[in-house]
Amino acid sequence: MIYFDNAATTFPKPKAVYATMEKVMRNCANPGRSGHKMALESGRMIYKTRELLAKLFRIQNPMQIIFTYNATDSLNLAIKGVVKKGDHVITTSMEHNSVLRPLQSLKEKGMIQVSIIKADREGHISIQDIEKNIQNNTKMIITTHASNVIGTLLPIEKIGKIAQKYHLIYMVDAAQSAGVYQIDVDKMNIDLLAFPGHKALLGPQGTGGLYIREGLDLEPFREGGTGSQSESLIQPQIMPDRYESGTLNTIGIAGLGAGINFILSEKMEKIQKHEEILTQRMIDGLMQIEGVSIYGPKDAKKQASVVSINIGKRDSSEISFLLDQKYDIASRSGLHCAPLAHKTIGTFEQGTVRFSMGYFNTIEEVDQVLYAIEEISEKNR
Amino acid sequence: MIYFDNAATTFPKPKAVYATMEKVMRNCANPGRSGHKMALESGRMIYKTRELLAKLFRIQNPMQIIFTYNATDSLNLAIKGVVKKGDHVITTSMEHNSVLRPLQSLKEKGMIQVSIIKADREGHISIQDIEKNIQNNTKMIITTHASNVIGTLLPIEKIGKIAQKYHLIYMVDAAQSAGVYQIDVDKMNIDLLAFPGHKALLGPQGTGGLYIREGLDLEPFREGGTGSQSESLIQPQIMPDRYESGTLNTIGIAGLGAGINFILSEKMEKIQKHEEILTQRMIDGLMQIEGVSIYGPKDAKKQASVVSINIGKRDSSEISFLLDQKYDIASRSGLHCAPLAHKTIGTFEQGTVRFSMGYFNTIEEVDQVLYAIEEISEKNR
Repeated sequence: MIYFDNAATTFPKPKAVYATMEKVMRNCANPGRSGHKMALESGRMIYKTRELLAKLFRIQNPMQIIFTYNATDSLNLAIKGVVKKGDHVITTSMEHNSVLRPLQSLKEKGMIQVSIIKADREGHISIQDIEKNIQNNTKMIITTHASNVIGTLLPIEKIGKIAQKYHLIYMVDAAQSAGVYQIDVDKMNIDLLAFPGHKALLGPQGTGGLYIREGLDLEPFREGGTGSQSESLIQPQIMPDRYESGTLNTIGIAGLGAGINFILSEKMEKIQKHEEILTQRMIDGLMQIEGVSIYGPKDAKKQASVVSINIGKRDSSEISFLLDQKYDIASRSGLHCAPLAHKTIGTFEQGTVRFSMGYFNTIEEVDQVLYAIEEISEKNR
Repeated sequence: MIYFDNAATTFPKPKAVYATMEKVMRNCANPGRSGHKMALESGRMIYKTRELLAKLFRIQNPMQIIFTYNATDSLNLAIKGVVKKGDHVITTSMEHNSVLRPLQSLKEKGMIQVSIIKADREGHISIQDIEKNIQNNTKMIITTHASNVIGTLLPIEKIGKIAQKYHLIYMVDAAQSAGVYQIDVDKMNIDLLAFPGHKALLGPQGTGGLYIREGLDLEPFREGGTGSQSESLIQPQIMPDRYESGTLNTIGIAGLGAGINFILSEKMEKIQKHEEILTQRMIDGLMQIEGVSIYGPKDAKKQASVVSINIGKRDSSEISFLLDQKYDIASRSGLHCAPLAHKTIGTFEQGTVRFSMGYFNTIEEVDQVLYAIEEISEKNR
C-alpha cells in the first residue's frame, strides 16, 4: 500500500516508537500517583517527553506543556478556557472544525463575537485584514499554521507580532506543522500552541498537547485527581496538574517521546526538505495531467506536504475509492473537516482528493500515484 | 515485584492486550475519517470494542457509548454537560476528586447547589439520606460504585430506583468496579456510566468511556472534526460523533477490546470470586496483626478488592516507601484523591496505605504482603 494520508495520522511510525511502546506497555504503572518504583518510572517517562517537546518548540519550562487526548481536546480547552462573555475572537477561513465548531457554539450561545478572516483562493491570509478586524473587545487570535486541506503555510510569526502589538492572546493550531516546521513559541509570540502527537510528531493516536504561556490562566476542563493537593476540593493551581486530571496515556506519551527523539536526531530540516521534494514532485507531475485541478499555492515552499486535487467534475470520494481499490493508494476525500476552506477555494460541493506525504514516503511512490491519477483522468476524457 | 496497586491501574494486562496493541500499532490509520481500507479497518476495531462494552454493561445500542481520555474526562463531560444554572446535585462523601472537584467548581461559580451525603465510617450510604436530600431543583444523583479508598460497594441498584422514582438523572462512577462487578444499566436505572479502560477492564491507559442513556442530551465539550456532517459549523447531533471529536486512541481502544474479551471469556463471576478470596484473606490476615488499623467493611462481600490500613500513627507514605524499597511491594499511600472519604473514616491527616488486588494476584502474594506488614509493625511495638 502507498500511504498518502499522513495529514490524518502518520504511518508508519519510526521503529523506536513501536519498540518503546512495547516495552512501556509491559512496565507501566500510574504516573504521578503512587510512590513505588514502577509508578515513579512512569512519571519520569512522561516528564522526558515533556522535556523533548520543550526542546522542539523552544519552550523554557516543560511544565507549561500539558498532555491531552488529541489536538481537538487542546483547542477546546484553550478556547473555552480563555474566552469570557463579551470577548471577540479573530480566526481564519482556513481553520479546521476543531477551531470553528467551538467558536461557533460559543457565538450561538451569545458568549462571544467571531471574525473569520477570509483567505484568498490559495489559502493566503492578509495580515492587514487581521489587523483591521481588531476591536476593543478582541481577546484572542487563532490561526492554523498549515491548512489541512491545501497545505498553505500561514505567516504565524507576523501574526504573532500583531497579537503582541495589541496585547492579544495568540493561539496556533499546529496540527499539520508540528514536527516538520520550526516553531519557536517565544520568537513567534505564541501564547497557546495546540498540537497532536500522532501526526508529524510521529507518536501514536491518543496523544496531544497544549503549551500555555506562563501567567496565562485558563478555566480548567478536566478537574479531578491530580495526585497533588488531594486534601483540597479545589483544582490545584500548579502546572501541569491544573489541566492534567485523571490518568494520562503513559504508553502513548512514551511513544510520542520516541517519535520526537527520532525527529531531533534526524533533524527537522532534513524532514522538511524531504517532504518539500515529494510535494513539489507531486505538484509538478499533477500539472502535466490534463483535466486535473490542483488547489493551493502549488509551491512546496509555501505549503506543507498536503496536495488537494479534483479530476474534472467527478466526485472526490469516487476517486479516492478507485485509488484505494484499484491502486492500493490511501488518500482522503471530501471536506476534511474544514468546510470554510472549501468555500474559500471553491470546492464546497465537490470536496477534494487529498494527498498528504510523510517522511517515510518516497519519490517512487509519488510517481506511482501520479501514474494512477493519469490513468484515472484519461478515462475521464 | 508484588503489584498491589490495581486500583490505580491494573498490572499486568492479559497477554492478548499486549498482542493486540502490538499488531494494531503497526496497522492503524485514522478511524472514521478517510475511506481507504486501513482507515475502515481502524473504524471497525473501534466499533468492536464499543460492542463488547455494550455486552458487558447490557447496553442495547453500542452507539450510546462514547470513548474518552479517561474516567475523569467522562465524569467532567457528564457533570458539566448535564447541569444548568440553579440545579441541585446529590453526591456522597465517598467520591473521588474527579466528581467532587467539578461539582465544587460549579458550586463556587454560583451555578449549582450540592448536597454531599455523608457515609458511615465503613463507607456505607443510607438510601434514606439520599431521598431526604432531594429538592425541587434536584437534577442528578452521582455516586461511586465502589470506594477507591476502602472498597465499600454502594447499593447502586437501590439508588437507581430512587432516581427513577423522582425522575432524576443517575450517574455511576464505575472506576473501581467495571470489569469485576455486574453492571446492568437498564436494570439499575443508570443514565450515565463513567468508566476507565485501564483498571479492571484490563485495557491500557489513555482509554475511558461514558455511556449516555438514549434521549439524554449533554452539552458537548470536545467540538470539532467528527468525519461527519463536515459541511456544518455545528457539532453533529448523531451518536457517538456528538461527543467524540478528534482522533480517538485507536491502539488503546483495540487493547481495551482485548481486555474485555478476556473478561468475557474468563467470566466476570470467576474474576470477582478470585478477588473476593484475595481480599478476605488480606483482611483476615491483617486482623491478626497487632497495631494495624483496617478501614472499611472488612468483608469481601461488601467491598471491592481494596483494603486500606494504617500502622499505629506512622505516616502512610513511610509505610508504602518501606514496602516498596525493602519488600518490593507496590502499594499506594496518602489520600488517594478522595479527601472526604478520609474525613469520613477519620484518616484525613494520616492518609492510608492502600492495597488493591487484581485478577492476576495470588494468595501467595497476599501472604507475602501480610508477612511484610507483620515485620514492619513489629518494629513499631
